[in-house]
Amino acid sequence: MKALGRHIIAEFYDCDSNILKDTQLVETYMKRAAIECGATIVESAFHTFNPYGVSGVIVIAESHLAIHTWPEYSYAAVDVFTCGDEIDPQDAINSLIESLKAKDSKMVNMLRGELKNQDVLHHKPIEVKSV
Amino acid sequence: MKALGRHIIAEFYDCDSNILKDTQLVETYMKRAAIECGATIVESAFHTFNPYGVSGVIVIAESHLAIHTWPEYSYAAVDVFTCGDEIDPQDAINSLIESLKAKDSKMVNMLRGELKNQDVLHHKPIEVKSV
Repeated sequence: MKALGRHIIAEFYDCDSNILKDTQLVETYMKRAAIECGATIVESAFHTFNPYGVSGVIVIAESHLAIHTWPEYSYAAVDVFTCGDEIDPQDAINSLIESLKAKDSKMVNMLRGELKNQDVLHHKPIEVKSV
Repeated sequence: MKALGRHIIAEFYDCDSNILKDTQLVETYMKRAAIECGATIVESAFHTFNPYGVSGVIVIAESHLAIHTWPEYSYAAVDVFTCGDEIDPQDAINSLIESLKAKDSKMVNMLRGELKNQDVLHHKPIEVKSV
């Protein structure tokens, strides 16, 4: 059985809370993580919440990266989902562990799109068309 | 140990491929799913890929919904991550199973942000501020 993609669901503990509060920094680090794992960024959406916390998603040609931060707990929930064999979501996770200064983390690796009785063609979109 | 949120990672098989190709329909159904589970939509980003396929993310005040479709395999990867106790991500999943006409599905329920030795305050942001 082959899979279309890989998804890492990561829990980052004991991060630098000042970074987790800073939307621009979080966005910069998320984009850096996407680039460092070789992804092609299509679009991003980041928001600052009141009283605190950042939510952000980067749509990549190969799926997405998402983050939600709780600065009051020095905690961030991070997801990196990539399709195809060419890029490794772990590279993005490693980049974020370093940039968010997470002292502790745990993660689950999942295969997405396990297809039975079919040959999986790993196609990377040639052209990205906004709608 | 308490958790900040719940995340359902869902695999939708044998969906209606014509729906999975249609970015506007997929976006409509994703927004409907967000509303049906009681979420507050903050922003959405959807893209059509060449040769086919839709990627879309809805940032909600309570975290996010994401979808990636492979019409050629009648398959969609769906994620619904919600924080707090007030809304149930399963409601959004059920809505999408129906609207995408998924004949088969499997899903994993995960707790996100399990915090030790701390009281977890489930705060819902009062005000959403774009950046």
